[in-house]
This record gives sequence, C-alpha cells and structure tokens, in this order.
Amino acid sequence: MDPSQIELALTRIRAALEAGEVQAAIDTLTDLHPVDRADAFSDLDDKDQAALLPRLDLEATADLLEELEDEQAAAVAETFDTEQLADVLDEMEPDEAADVLGDLPADRAEQALAEMEEARNVLPLLPFADETAGGRMTTSFIALPMGTTASEAIQILRRVEPSSETPYYLYVEDEADRLVGIVGLRDLVISDAKTKVETIMDSEVISAHTQEDQEDVALRMARYDLAALPVVNDRGVVVGVITHDDVLDVVAEEATEDIYRLANVPDPDLSINSPIRQAIRMRIPWLYLSAATALFAAWVISNFESLIAEVAILAVFLSVVAGLGGNTATQSLALIVRALALGEIDMKNAWRTVLKEGLTGFVAGALVGTVVGLAVWAWKGNPVLGMVLGVALIGNMLVAGFVGALVPISLKFLRLDPALASSVLVTTVTDSVGFALFLTFSALALSNLR
Amino acid sequence: MDPSQIELALTRIRAALEAGEVQAAIDTLTDLHPVDRADAFSDLDDKDQAALLPRLDLEATADLLEELEDEQAAAVAETFDTEQLADVLDEMEPDEAADVLGDLPADRAEQALAEMEEARNVLPLLPFADETAGGRMTTSFIALPMGTTASEAIQILRRVEPSSETPYYLYVEDEADRLVGIVGLRDLVISDAKTKVETIMDSEVISAHTQEDQEDVALRMARYDLAALPVVNDRGVVVGVITHDDVLDVVAEEATEDIYRLANVPDPDLSINSPIRQAIRMRIPWLYLSAATALFAAWVISNFESLIAEVAILAVFLSVVAGLGGNTATQSLALIVRALALGEIDMKNAWRTVLKEGLTGFVAGALVGTVVGLAVWAWKGNPVLGMVLGVALIGNMLVAGFVGALVPISLKFLRLDPALASSVLVTTVTDSVGFALFLTFSALALSNLR
Repeated sequence: MDPSQIELALTRIRAALEAGEVQAAIDTLTDLHPVDRADAFSDLDDKDQAALLPRLDLEATADLLEELEDEQAAAVAETFDTEQLADVLDEMEPDEAADVLGDLPADRAEQALAEMEEARNVLPLLPFADETAGGRMTTSFIALPMGTTASEAIQILRRVEPSSETPYYLYVEDEADRLVGIVGLRDLVISDAKTKVETIMDSEVISAHTQEDQEDVALRMARYDLAALPVVNDRGVVVGVITHDDVLDVVAEEATEDIYRLANVPDPDLSINSPIRQAIRMRIPWLYLSAATALFAAWVISNFESLIAEVAILAVFLSVVAGLGGNTATQSLALIVRALALGEIDMKNAWRTVLKEGLTGFVAGALVGTVVGLAVWAWKGNPVLGMVLGVALIGNMLVAGFVGALVPISLKFLRLDPALASSVLVTTVTDSVGFALFLTFSALALSNLR
Repeated sequence: MDPSQIELALTRIRAALEAGEVQAAIDTLTDLHPVDRADAFSDLDDKDQAALLPRLDLEATADLLEELEDEQAAAVAETFDTEQLADVLDEMEPDEAADVLGDLPADRAEQALAEMEEARNVLPLLPFADETAGGRMTTSFIALPMGTTASEAIQILRRVEPSSETPYYLYVEDEADRLVGIVGLRDLVISDAKTKVETIMDSEVISAHTQEDQEDVALRMARYDLAALPVVNDRGVVVGVITHDDVLDVVAEEATEDIYRLANVPDPDLSINSPIRQAIRMRIPWLYLSAATALFAAWVISNFESLIAEVAILAVFLSVVAGLGGNTATQSLALIVRALALGEIDMKNAWRTVLKEGLTGFVAGALVGTVVGLAVWAWKGNPVLGMVLGVALIGNMLVAGFVGALVPISLKFLRLDPALASSVLVTTVTDSVGFALFLTFSALALSNLR
C-alpha cells in the first residue's frame, strides 16, 4: 500500500476520534490490511491508541499484536487483564503468541498461559532460543498417518481451523510418528479420493532439527526454493514448520547484521528511528575501540617523529598509504563476509581464498602504487619520494588483501561472527603496517629525500 | 544436503565413467536432488559432462538447465541441436526457459522458439528487463473466470500439467479478463463443490505492474508475507506470477549489492570464485578513485607542511582525526543505506534523519574527543595538543555524521544508487575536513605547541 493511504487513514481516524465518533475511527482502521493497520496504529499517540484498543474485536486485536513490533506488542498486551490477554493469545498464530509471551514479565506470561485454551500449541515453542529453527517455527501444521486417503485428508483440512500460515503441505508420519513424506496440497486435490497419501507423497524429505541455527535453515530453504520446511525433534517427529516469510526475515536480518557489523554498528536492532541516546550508547564503544587502535597506529608514527621533523613532506602521504590499504582490505572483507554468509567458504577453499585475496591486493598495489608514485614524483619533483610511496603501497595492499580475508575466515572458524570486529582489526593492521612500511623505507632512503 | 554427500556422489560418478559404466554414473547423478545434481554436474570436467549429457532424459536435462548458473546453462544449451533444445525448453519452467533463451545468440534463440510447442508461455516473458516484475515472473499460473465452481476449478487443476512452481493460488478474472480476486488452494479444497469462486476469493488483491522494479516488488511481498504475487499489465490482466523464491533471490542480491557497494566493490556478481583478472579489473577503478581522493586530502595537508616541519608531533595525530571521522561516517552510512533499502526513509523524515545523524556525530565526538584529548595530554604532556585534537575530533565527527547521512539520501533522491560512491565521497570529506580542522586549530595554538 502507498504510504500516503496510511496517512489518509490516520487523518480520518484522528478527526473521527476528535469528534467522538469512535466507531467510525475503528471502521477506518479495520478497513486497512492488518499490516498497514499495525503501522497506522503505531503512529497514533497513546491517548488515541487507548481509545481504540478496547473497541477492537478479538480477531482484530490478535491481528494487531501479530503485526506490531515486539516491544509495542508487549506494551499493548500489558494493558489487558489476564482473561482478555488469554483470549487474544488463543486467537493468534502460535509462534506469534509465543513471541508475545516471551516479551511479557514471567508471572504475567504464566497466568495468561494458565487461562489459555490453545496453550498446548504455544507451550512447545517456548523452550527454544529465538535464533534456532525451534524458535522460528510455528506449530500450526497438519500431520497425517500413513494409510490416510486423499478424501480423508481433505476432511481433516476442513475440520482444522483455517490459519493464515497456510498449510501448502501436509506431513505424513509412520507408526512411530516419524516424518516419512510430504504431500503438496495440489497433489492432494487432483488425486483420486481413495488414493493413499503415501503413494502421492514425496519421500525425499528435506527438514531441519529444532536446535539448528536459523541462518543454516534459511540457507537450505533458499537453496531448494522451499515454501515451508518441517522441523523435527531428536526422534524424527515433526514438531513445527518454518514458512517462506520466516526465511525472508532471517535473510534480511542477517544482511542488516552484516552491513552494520562491517560498519561497526553492533546492534542489528538499531535503526534510524531509534532514540538518539540508544544510538550513541550502541555506537560509542566501537568508536572508543577505534580511537584506541588509531592511537596505536599513531604510536607507530611517533617512533619516526625525528624523521618527520627532518622531512615534513612525509606527513602528507601517510594517510594515502593507510587509506588505500584500508580500502583494499574493505573490498576483501565485503567479498569474504558475503561468501561466508552464503555458505560459499569451507575448510577446503579457505586457505586458497586467503592467498588469492593477498595476490589480488599485491597486483592492485602494483598498479595503483605505480600510478600514485609517478603522480607524486610529478607533483613534488622527487622520484625517490614517489618510489618509496609506491613500494609502501604495494606492500600495504598485499597485506590488506591477505588480512582482509584471513581475519573474517579465522573468526568464522573460531565460531565467532566474521563481520563483527573484522573492520577494526583489519584497519588497525593496515594502518600500522602502512605507516611502518612507508616510514621505514623513507628512513632507508633518507639521503635522497632531504 | 551435506556438501560431503555431493563429494561422495562425484567420486562414484568419476569412478563409474572411468570404468565405462555410463548408466551407473547417470543413476548416481539423477539420485541427487536437482539442485545438488546441478552442483555436482558443474564440478565435473568437460569430458565427463559431455559423456553424461546425451544420456540424461528430457526431464533431467530440463531440471539441469533450470538449476545451473546462467552462463553454464547457456553453454550446455549450445551443445544441443535446435530440435533437442526446443524439446528441453518445452519441458522447463517458462521463466527459466526465457532466461536460457536470453543468454543464447539471437539466431539460435529464434530457431529454438520456432521449434518449441510451448513458445506461447515463453514469448510474453522475453520483452521484460531482468530487474522488473515482468522479468522475474513466470507465466505458469491458473486464471479462472467468475462463476467457476470449486469442483470446476479442481477439474482445471487436474488438466493443467503439474509444475514445480506450485500454484497455491488461483486468480479470478472478470469479463474483461481483469484480476478481481485470489482464491487460495486451501479454501478451494475445503469448499463445497458447487461454491462459486467469487464467494471464496479474497478481493483485496495485492499485485505488481510488469514494469515495476523488482526491489519494490520484493519489499511489498515481504511486507505482506506473500507466497506469490500476481503481475498485471496496463489493462489490469494477470500476465504472470512472482513466487516467494524470487523474492528471496532479490533480497539476497540487493543485500550483496549494498554490502559490496559500501565497500567499493561495484559488481554484485563478483565473488570469491571469480577469476583473479576479473576481480582486479572490477576493483581497480575504485582504488584509483580512492587514490585520487587520498591525494586530494594529502594536498590539504601539504598546505601545512611548514607547520608540520616546526611541530612534527602533529603528523602523529592526523590519522587519528581522519580515522575516527571515517568510522563515524561509516556507521551513519550503514544505518542510512539499510533504512533506504528497507523503504524506511521518505521526503518527510529525510531532513530530520540527516540532522539527527549530525547530532549523534557531535555527541559521540564530544565523548570520544574528551577521552582522546585527555589520553594525548597524558601521553605527550601537552594539554593544548590534547585540546586541539579533541576539538578537531568533535568538529570532524559532527561533519561525519551529517555527511554520512546526507550523501546516501541525496543520491537516492537523485535516483542514483545510495550505496554506490557514498563511501568514497564521504571519506574524502571526513579526511579533508579532519586534516584542515586539526591543522588550522594547531596553527592557531602554535605558540603553545612548539
């Protein structure tokens, strides 16, 4: 929907509330798609929200809680008494209800669970960590025993309450409830009524384990273009399903995380809408860290202070060496971090990749170093200055490519986040090495630089 | 699938071919999931590929062409004669067939199209640019006229050939063939046989136009959690469908693009597997550009050469000012580029966002500048040096936050890619401003620095 349409609805809702026509405001709000409705609701002030909330019916309230941001959903949930809350949670998708319960104070969550009728759908979801397959899955799916016929399956579909997490697939289980096959809804529909599900099921099941990391699960669903992936427990029993929209969320979240971490913004939840205090609190530790590493690089230069006092022109080109090293390293970092995220690097090709990035840095350094060296010779009229700078660039860009690949790959093999801290570590190395190389070569060529 | 399983299959296939048992090799290959099969096939050398290809049946060949990378699929297609090629293309998903045809020489593509039986499904896809909704959609979908009953719809489903791009949804059209509603397969299945589709359809249709940019389409599908989105032409007639796996590809591609561009890697197709020549050819222009801007920043410093000759210690801290400015700007850049990609910035909040980033930079500068200033005072024993550095940091980090937000937002409003060139532009500003501020303040305080 066009954002201006949400604006229009908001204007109408505010005017209606102003005029005391609460029902008109409710009607305007509920005419919107649930996603847009949650957006519009968030944009209203507390007073208007409080006026609307009690007048929404159960389903609309459940939709709202499903679509609001986690924090806001919890805040809205807090305004209900236990019984109301339990009713709303019963109406929600189990995975969304579990998320809301997870964000509530423990005693409130327990009371609500005790009152809920559908608690058995939500309870199995609570133990799983957010970033695992178990934490992402929903329990609304349909499992059929082997021997079920197509028409029986359709009867079961009719009986089960409709759900927005559409079950495109039905899961077939053996006597021990283990997942043995998947039936697509389409195959079910076009089959003869008496056909047994095991004859139309796909028995080459691709599944995930409850404890698996969401990123691995997302990679698998993306690789095989799956709209839904069954999640099984240790015994091979389906306990939930992850749907295509979850994968999309995971991929988008992981991309944000990588972009932020490469830029030394540690919290993926930070956005342009975060309060300024939070923005500073999140960003400042990394700026302090980067100040510390910059001072380390400064210390490297300070060892050459008398050299610079003698040949002040050297100070002019220090930043050129550091800058180009940093740029080369950043290019390698981006390629490697992305390749790691897409699962393209393993033990086998890791070492070759590091060497290749080093070689790329070296060749790029030779090309850039030559041009910059010649340019500086032309500018300052000193061929030795140009040569010293060019050679330092080659050395630093070789190191930059090598380190830009080595650091994230090493972090990954240490089971740390490859994007986090990579930039700081790599820049420290390229700055310090660049300064040391350039100033050491300058000291060696001192008689020709004076 | 575990990569080691593909390795295992490859070992078996190579051994079978070595022993002349082509059928055994084919069997091992076709036992794999089509996605893994394509991976394994790519890893075989040309000789082995040539031995296997003619022995694959039509369906396996079509699967292979669908899953191979574009370039390799075209290479394989080139080995067939026109008739074989037409048969294989007929067997493929229309959108995949269109992609292969687009990568073939024009005359080969024309000949193949002339021989194809299903050309009418593929032809409508050919005119659209790759990055539009039309370029992403497939023509395999089912449209029903209003008045169709549930049982008639199921009859139609039975008649239409099954397709891997599962039609979870059926599209309902009015007399002028315009899209008026969507019926979920599940609702169809559980409805009474005589129910008319218009009574169970959802008439609040979310769709895309053929010419729309794929990124906007992906944002819409992600926003509303859609598994499939109908694509309509100027007359409102459905001409294709975009499925969830396409969205995932778009989101992943756009994320790669943003990460690369922020790191000055211009081509999103570059990967760790690209030949080294290509890697250097793509990366070097940006390194030259960054060399040019680094030399500009060096020129700024060169205006203060006599100052540095007098107070060489200043050279030590130049990189601290530039580095922290660059880091602050990079943080802002990452936040803004991501917010732009997720559609969170519009005309209304753009200016506020820029000011907020500037303010964040100022506050962070005050915090970091104070600590660094005190540290340098302690290290070098000169309070004025510490103060000059601290004040320069505050100024530069204010500028950094401001420019780090202003540049990508301006590029976006100029309809350019906000991530491209942002880093270079922003770093040039923060380097030059940082050097100028620090050295100007130093010149002013010269008597206390000597």
